[in-house]
Amino acid sequence: VLLNDIETPFVAIDLGRAEANIHAAQAYAEEHAIALRPHVKTHKLPALAHAQLAAGAVGITAQKIGEAAVMVAAGIGDVLVTFNIVGESKLVPLARLAGEAQRLGLGLDNAVSIDLAQRAAEQANRTIDVLIEFESGANRTGVIEPSDGRALALRVERAPNLRFAGFMTYPLGASAAGWVREARSLLAQDGVAADTFSGGGTPRMWHAHETEGLTELRIGTYVYHDRATVGAGAAALDDCALHVHATVISTPTATRAVLDAGSKTLTSDRIAPEYGAGFGHLVDHPGAIITSLSEEHAVVDVSEVERRPAIGDVVRIVPNHACPVSNLHDVVYAHRGGALEGAWPVAARGTTR
Amino acid sequence: VLLNDIETPFVAIDLGRAEANIHAAQAYAEEHAIALRPHVKTHKLPALAHAQLAAGAVGITAQKIGEAAVMVAAGIGDVLVTFNIVGESKLVPLARLAGEAQRLGLGLDNAVSIDLAQRAAEQANRTIDVLIEFESGANRTGVIEPSDGRALALRVERAPNLRFAGFMTYPLGASAAGWVREARSLLAQDGVAADTFSGGGTPRMWHAHETEGLTELRIGTYVYHDRATVGAGAAALDDCALHVHATVISTPTATRAVLDAGSKTLTSDRIAPEYGAGFGHLVDHPGAIITSLSEEHAVVDVSEVERRPAIGDVVRIVPNHACPVSNLHDVVYAHRGGALEGAWPVAARGTTR
Repeated sequence: VLLNDIETPFVAIDLGRAEANIHAAQAYAEEHAIALRPHVKTHKLPALAHAQLAAGAVGITAQKIGEAAVMVAAGIGDVLVTFNIVGESKLVPLARLAGEAQRLGLGLDNAVSIDLAQRAAEQANRTIDVLIEFESGANRTGVIEPSDGRALALRVERAPNLRFAGFMTYPLGASAAGWVREARSLLAQDGVAADTFSGGGTPRMWHAHETEGLTELRIGTYVYHDRATVGAGAAALDDCALHVHATVISTPTATRAVLDAGSKTLTSDRIAPEYGAGFGHLVDHPGAIITSLSEEHAVVDVSEVERRPAIGDVVRIVPNHACPVSNLHDVVYAHRGGALEGAWPVAARGTTR
Repeated sequence: VLLNDIETPFVAIDLGRAEANIHAAQAYAEEHAIALRPHVKTHKLPALAHAQLAAGAVGITAQKIGEAAVMVAAGIGDVLVTFNIVGESKLVPLARLAGEAQRLGLGLDNAVSIDLAQRAAEQANRTIDVLIEFESGANRTGVIEPSDGRALALRVERAPNLRFAGFMTYPLGASAAGWVREARSLLAQDGVAADTFSGGGTPRMWHAHETEGLTELRIGTYVYHDRATVGAGAAALDDCALHVHATVISTPTATRAVLDAGSKTLTSDRIAPEYGAGFGHLVDHPGAIITSLSEEHAVVDVSEVERRPAIGDVVRIVPNHACPVSNLHDVVYAHRGGALEGAWPVAARGTTR
């Protein structure tokens, strides 16, 4: 079966490119003696998680309990969930995950999450490893002051079923190394070691070794790459392993083509203007710009395109952001050079809890 | 069971409000003798489609074959698919839909789609009703010139298994009535009548009767409403029937709260700045602004909020755009006044084909 026979729109995964991306990152991490812990949020596929582990990854990263649970059910043992687990309704799912994983780690930034993690670990009769998350430029989660990181680390140390494993951040901002140095020196006064220093983010993945003291790298998008990571210089367009295939379904004017793939297929995620215009890159039609999306339509400005696509033509799109594209699709089509290898259920899609 | 016991993030549907929205639109349409054909893309739920028909809708609108097929399988007979069906791989699914629906209509704007519709109808041994789509301000699909509309109408008339039913557009721009008048007068020379004039769009739904000659109204978002339709003046915030419930999982600074709901839960759809800032409205915390989303996090600026939420607090969010939120979730929680009526599978989610 060829990709050309599949009804559009659909997501195609070039397995050769994905495997090359996996091996290149693994080689880089090993060259610099950094443990690689891929984030599965990008592919949400047990098959690719197993490929990442087979290549040498120490474990996986997941963002939610549900995402981690799918991977553990698929036979993956070592999972780090880099998300504050909060709320009484999370106790049972977290305890179940702790019981089923061979090793569960949590990244968190507050005492409420620590206390819940302790209760879940106790209920599962297990130990959960805890990384304290700190701020290094995302202005999202993470404690600001090293002294607050120290206080949380000590709270973890006092919890009988938790083990303080170190610190984590996302992305790996310029301030990260200094922050960890300071937090480690504070904790040394308490006789507590912070073994792990974990940082994340594909855009600057090849610079991870420049962060002094980093022991672990969490990256997700690198497995597929996308317009954002290409724009950031982490990959070339030819490294991109995920393409949305779409059909031209209308050409109302000479300079406008409309595709059967909208925000339900591509997401409405944007990228920095210097990385490119519009909502995706049409590989075979350089100069085309996806100027707007509705749920099922992409409107493409083809005024700068030499060979303009006609109704019925199938185009291939590198999306702005690969990860949420995986989340939209129940199935992706794995192929090698256009020959279909299988229709793979995106087992961990829809796991927001 | 109360909504409060459900693990966040999740989507709650206030059935009382949804029913009130359904009945208000139906009363308006009947007052103006306009047929109402709700678009199911907003809710993607057979139960609400049946409620819309029970209230007096003449049929439903769907955007893709797959979306329509779910509704037909749930016992709904009269479906209009307002999307150009293009591509050889669509022939079998379209023929199957034509065979299973009591009445199938298609909205299209080109000869390729007409010819495919004829082949599918012939294969199903059925007649498909065809509306020719025209441009009225969306700059998306739709023929530009009334003379082109006439030519396509005549092509439909010549196809043995197709019936030319009239014209459709989205949204209902100011030029729409004039366009249809001109196309009708051209077709009168051929002795062809265009019975249906169908227009769509919730934002200006209450102005539909101002469009001369309109016979049918297609609206979707009105069943839930959202920040965009409230901003457009089509509803009040209290009419909104869909809320995302999310938990505060971090408060790294005094003015920043982070929620466990990101673009995988809310979508990254934006709205016009004059309709409000950020990625959703926190009903119980006026002044809060969701300044950024990542896949699982919403970062909220609470500097203007009087009673700032704490870690563990659950907040309710009216999203910018309700329809793609439905598409992200496998299940929504239907309730009356916070008392759970059921966890409803979003049967038509993920139907991009």
